[in-house]
Amino acid sequence: MPGSTYGNRFKITTWGESHGKAVGVVIDGCPAGLPLCEEDIQKFLDRRKPGQNKYATPRREDDQAEILSGIFQGQTTGTPISLLVWNKTARSQDYSKIASYYRPGHADYTFDEKYGFRDYRGGGRTSGRETIGRVAAGAIASKLLEQLGIRLCAYTKSIGNVSVDEKHMDFDEISKNPLYMPDHDAAVRAQVLLDGAMARKDSVGGIIECQITGLFPGIGEPVFDKLDACLARAMLSIGAVKGFEIGEGFRAAGMFGSENNDGFIVKNGEIAKRTNHSGGVLGGLSDGAPVIFRVAVKPTPSIAASQTTVNKNMEEIPIEITGRHDPVIVPRAVVVVEAMAALTVADLLLENMSARLDRILDFYSRNL
Amino acid sequence: MPGSTYGNRFKITTWGESHGKAVGVVIDGCPAGLPLCEEDIQKFLDRRKPGQNKYATPRREDDQAEILSGIFQGQTTGTPISLLVWNKTARSQDYSKIASYYRPGHADYTFDEKYGFRDYRGGGRTSGRETIGRVAAGAIASKLLEQLGIRLCAYTKSIGNVSVDEKHMDFDEISKNPLYMPDHDAAVRAQVLLDGAMARKDSVGGIIECQITGLFPGIGEPVFDKLDACLARAMLSIGAVKGFEIGEGFRAAGMFGSENNDGFIVKNGEIAKRTNHSGGVLGGLSDGAPVIFRVAVKPTPSIAASQTTVNKNMEEIPIEITGRHDPVIVPRAVVVVEAMAALTVADLLLENMSARLDRILDFYSRNL
Amino acid sequence: MPGSTYGNRFKITTWGESHGKAVGVVIDGCPAGLPLCEEDIQKFLDRRKPGQNKYATPRREDDQAEILSGIFQGQTTGTPISLLVWNKTARSQDYSKIASYYRPGHADYTFDEKYGFRDYRGGGRTSGRETIGRVAAGAIASKLLEQLGIRLCAYTKSIGNVSVDEKHMDFDEISKNPLYMPDHDAAVRAQVLLDGAMARKDSVGGIIECQITGLFPGIGEPVFDKLDACLARAMLSIGAVKGFEIGEGFRAAGMFGSENNDGFIVKNGEIAKRTNHSGGVLGGLSDGAPVIFRVAVKPTPSIAASQTTVNKNMEEIPIEITGRHDPVIVPRAVVVVEAMAALTVADLLLENMSARLDRILDFYSRNL
Amino acid sequence: MPGSTYGNRFKITTWGESHGKAVGVVIDGCPAGLPLCEEDIQKFLDRRKPGQNKYATPRREDDQAEILSGIFQGQTTGTPISLLVWNKTARSQDYSKIASYYRPGHADYTFDEKYGFRDYRGGGRTSGRETIGRVAAGAIASKLLEQLGIRLCAYTKSIGNVSVDEKHMDFDEISKNPLYMPDHDAAVRAQVLLDGAMARKDSVGGIIECQITGLFPGIGEPVFDKLDACLARAMLSIGAVKGFEIGEGFRAAGMFGSENNDGFIVKNGEIAKRTNHSGGVLGGLSDGAPVIFRVAVKPTPSIAASQTTVNKNMEEIPIEITGRHDPVIVPRAVVVVEAMAALTVADLLLENMSARLDRILDFYSRNL
Repeated sequence: MPGSTYGNRFKITTWGESHGKAVGVVIDGCPAGLPLCEEDIQKFLDRRKPGQNKYATPRREDDQAEILSGIFQGQTTGTPISLLVWNKTARSQDYSKIASYYRPGHADYTFDEKYGFRDYRGGGRTSGRETIGRVAAGAIASKLLEQLGIRLCAYTKSIGNVSVDEKHMDFDEISKNPLYMPDHDAAVRAQVLLDGAMARKDSVGGIIECQITGLFPGIGEPVFDKLDACLARAMLSIGAVKGFEIGEGFRAAGMFGSENNDGFIVKNGEIAKRTNHSGGVLGGLSDGAPVIFRVAVKPTPSIAASQTTVNKNMEEIPIEITGRHDPVIVPRAVVVVEAMAALTVADLLLENMSARLDRILDFYSRNL
Repeated sequence: MPGSTYGNRFKITTWGESHGKAVGVVIDGCPAGLPLCEEDIQKFLDRRKPGQNKYATPRREDDQAEILSGIFQGQTTGTPISLLVWNKTARSQDYSKIASYYRPGHADYTFDEKYGFRDYRGGGRTSGRETIGRVAAGAIASKLLEQLGIRLCAYTKSIGNVSVDEKHMDFDEISKNPLYMPDHDAAVRAQVLLDGAMARKDSVGGIIECQITGLFPGIGEPVFDKLDACLARAMLSIGAVKGFEIGEGFRAAGMFGSENNDGFIVKNGEIAKRTNHSGGVLGGLSDGAPVIFRVAVKPTPSIAASQTTVNKNMEEIPIEITGRHDPVIVPRAVVVVEAMAALTVADLLLENMSARLDRILDFYSRNL
Repeated sequence: MPGSTYGNRFKITTWGESHGKAVGVVIDGCPAGLPLCEEDIQKFLDRRKPGQNKYATPRREDDQAEILSGIFQGQTTGTPISLLVWNKTARSQDYSKIASYYRPGHADYTFDEKYGFRDYRGGGRTSGRETIGRVAAGAIASKLLEQLGIRLCAYTKSIGNVSVDEKHMDFDEISKNPLYMPDHDAAVRAQVLLDGAMARKDSVGGIIECQITGLFPGIGEPVFDKLDACLARAMLSIGAVKGFEIGEGFRAAGMFGSENNDGFIVKNGEIAKRTNHSGGVLGGLSDGAPVIFRVAVKPTPSIAASQTTVNKNMEEIPIEITGRHDPVIVPRAVVVVEAMAALTVADLLLENMSARLDRILDFYSRNL
Repeated sequence: MPGSTYGNRFKITTWGESHGKAVGVVIDGCPAGLPLCEEDIQKFLDRRKPGQNKYATPRREDDQAEILSGIFQGQTTGTPISLLVWNKTARSQDYSKIASYYRPGHADYTFDEKYGFRDYRGGGRTSGRETIGRVAAGAIASKLLEQLGIRLCAYTKSIGNVSVDEKHMDFDEISKNPLYMPDHDAAVRAQVLLDGAMARKDSVGGIIECQITGLFPGIGEPVFDKLDACLARAMLSIGAVKGFEIGEGFRAAGMFGSENNDGFIVKNGEIAKRTNHSGGVLGGLSDGAPVIFRVAVKPTPSIAASQTTVNKNMEEIPIEITGRHDPVIVPRAVVVVEAMAALTVADLLLENMSARLDRILDFYSRNL
């Protein structure tokens, strides 16, 4: 199982390097009959586009999605959807220098060890451009989930040591500031922090939170394909992500059982939970409450400040990584988190259809 | 893909319910020629055995592994290894009451929603006994990794708010205290905390840390099957685990790039890193430094203190979960974490063999 | 992907050697709510039992299925069903001699090449006893398909050069003769052929045909997981099977398009086909007509007549394989063919549920 | 598992419809370091190109492979290789009529049943153009196998009732006649047969044989992923293929064990077989002898002669399928058979590397 495929039922395979001809994705398993056009995908891609403000690389990536297959008369046909984005603005000369040494915090060394050599141009396969395929596929998964009333919303929870104040969270604010934070004041303070880091040629990390609402109970597969286990893998598969937690997460480790348990109640004639410390998952299956999780994103490893590293001649050398790099990856990664979550939920939702004989009999008796 | 299978190359399928006849596992893909006997597995199983001290359930589970296939003349044959542990001490009467209501923090409700009904005896499939199969398989994976000089060591990092002091970590201490903490003083304080929680009929959570040493660079598959992504899924697949982080993890979110980057150096004529903030993984591939990760474990949801919940008649009722339950799951989960990590590394290590043509040619030229 | 797992949605993993402690299977993905007991499985196992007449090995294999997990209150729970059959009658001494040489037509040599050594007792993993797991799992798949009105019927089409006369096929006859042929006269002639072969210490092969009725259109996945492609793999995975054909099969290669095409017609207000040369599959999807396929079974390789072969010292030696061996495998393989077909159809049927958005929306709107 | 992915280790995903923008394939798992250029792929694609003689559709498909990723400095990088062929010459107007009725022998009806509607232009996803992705991927697999001395050769064994004479087989002849038959005389007679069929607006089928030489023993996985089982699935996944047999195949069903068994001998100091009735596979593993298998191809279903069928209004109507169609698919399918066989062998060969501990230890001890 080489690693560029994700999902079993709603299955995607991404391909492409930063400075190859194009990057893209093949989605296999999208149900037939979903209305879909390039604009649906473009909306998601635009959220990860660089160059939109001073906290993102000034590179212009005019990324236009082009659908090559799987759509007929405006609807998905049930066959693979292939789509790509051409790498128009690649400037190889910017990256030629890095061929000779191993950048700290990057995969240059590990790729050389694994494969014997690497496409060093712009990070090659490990470039953030690889996420274009994920985001495009996630746009389709999101559209599918919308039909079932399931919505995802990811946002920046913290930048460096500046966190959103949970008491003042305002979801309408997310799209109004360049950091995608649901708290105007926090966003202002985070920008001050970022300005300082940029002045020092340094970078910062942060935390992204994602909420999934409208997800009904029972989604996820027991044991190894638990909903939270699949989400954890999906999130750690994003470059620069170093941690994942669901519900109370690491805080739960310091709590007592009497505090952390969510008692069941009856609400509007339906079973619900008094609290949601679990983050919407019990035993690996969705419990009907919103699914809430967070991911830790490390600071951008490419910094212009001086560092020391090793070159291919085994010499220790000082380096300064110039070129166009985001001082913080977090805002652009928000849509990647949302896309990977959508892909995960779509996959498990389709899987769940075969859980019960009564439902299978009903399904086939109605569809024959 | 129903969820009871883990791994692609070193592949396991667990089965069994707490109060069924037995629990077990089938391991397919273990290379031929590995010396293996039941004692190898028993050593691991004994580490998760309950009833060994007052912080673990006084249930006696005299769990003896029985190998049914895949071994001939003391060695693995390359064919599936099936092994099981009989459920000798199950006492169904203890659990009959819980059939009628949904325990907070457990999967009773979500299983009913997914499957229409559930085996409510002792948690059924969601019982901690499911991990017997994982631990047994992990024992085999560990033995395989040992042949290559790769060693895993998991231990308790914190219990409730009592953490191991990183400056006084002593690995020899781990097996000397009932909490598997590498710090005698912390273990003493944690026991005080636990005694208090037990007196209040409450439970506590904690954090488990795991180190993998001897792992050479390049293990893991880019993009979706990154080493850390696979570890994250493996860990969140363990019941009660709510979070995963590698290296600095969530701390990295608050760091600057200049702090978090690990500069490469030359050490004993080999490439190494000055620091190990990354936790031994770069771009999803092992980087040669020790792999270090932590998992957050929630407090045991079964507590004897009074709680409120809902029964199947949609009535809100008070409950007290009596019976034999661990006041803290963490110490018994330590070996489960280690087992799942071993399974993950073994799987990716075998996968890695086909990464490079030069090595494949060498492999086949030598073996024909 | 080591090879002992079959299916993606209705997924089985078989394990066990002829002379190990037991053979068995784990079934993961069987929907919850299917009534199931050991007797359901036993009925299928009894059809492959040896020693029932003189054309089958006089070995007594009193194979009793024992279910270890996955059933509660007489129904499947949606969790893995583990079941096994103990190897009671294994007599290792019968087989010790074959450790030293490579039996013609067997996998002794190829296993030694692949794994370095082999469990030579009774064929080890390559023994026909491995099919016990398949047949047991197939019994469960058949029961599931029955709920949807889908029925499978396999039978002997020919033994050596004696074929069933298609004009006199009588399905009631199948269970009345020891060869499972749907033609009394052919069965009598085949027994004469067999008696002659046995007298010469020789063996014969034959052809098994299988019909699947009640299968509605659209089952199968385009391109690589076509229904007929999956059936072909399933059949060739049975030891001794050397060929597979669907519908006209190899005869189609000699036909003209105008002969082979099945024109569509309207029958009872529904779309049907005038003929069924296709064998119930078009473009890899079931077309509503009965699925009909055949498999070629080679003659039993273990014969008492003298042969020459090579031993481990690279010496050419004459051998006579004594012991208890079927002079023809075909009749006992009939139920294996049926079981593998049931597993294949069940798997693709569950897969098919996520093909269309309208049906998915209907499914979830009714089940929330 | 939607169906457009093949292989676990050397894994391909094809995509594209006949009249969409392009058709293509993503190959994931090709080892790093394989020299590869577009010309390597073009050579294979040219073998399936139509319009090369009067027995193939006069459509001009100037199919030029374009590699989009996975190659750097003339070598594979170990990351996904994406390649496509643009659909330059699609003329949608030729196919608009078939939207209204179900062509006999085609998947129109079954796709409508499965997906609710279909891309009817030129057969959409079921078009023979889907095989472009397979052939391109197969070219890469073949190049990989060549490095290990493994060669594949497929050819036409029969067209209609005209078969190659096994005594006069001449492999040099294959590329010299338009039917790819290794027998000049048979090719001449087959052309007479074809000319007659074309005059009657009819079509014919045939048989393709493939030989794999240089394959060492032990390739294939026991039980469900046997080499022959995987080949059978690969072959039946090709549109129009109705049967598969290996070695003696269906002939073995009529043979005695004493005839069919291949006695082992010592030849040049190595173990070999006196005969090769098994077709190079024992117990699902390659046995060192050439692997030989055959596939039955049905006559082209699209014929200009009058047929009757049903339209979407449930009316029985006469039809004549005009347009550009091959009177025989067999010659163009030869390279598809070879490509699918190469993909299968490459996949299992990589899988085989983890079969034995001694080889794994040797592998890693040499590569660290």
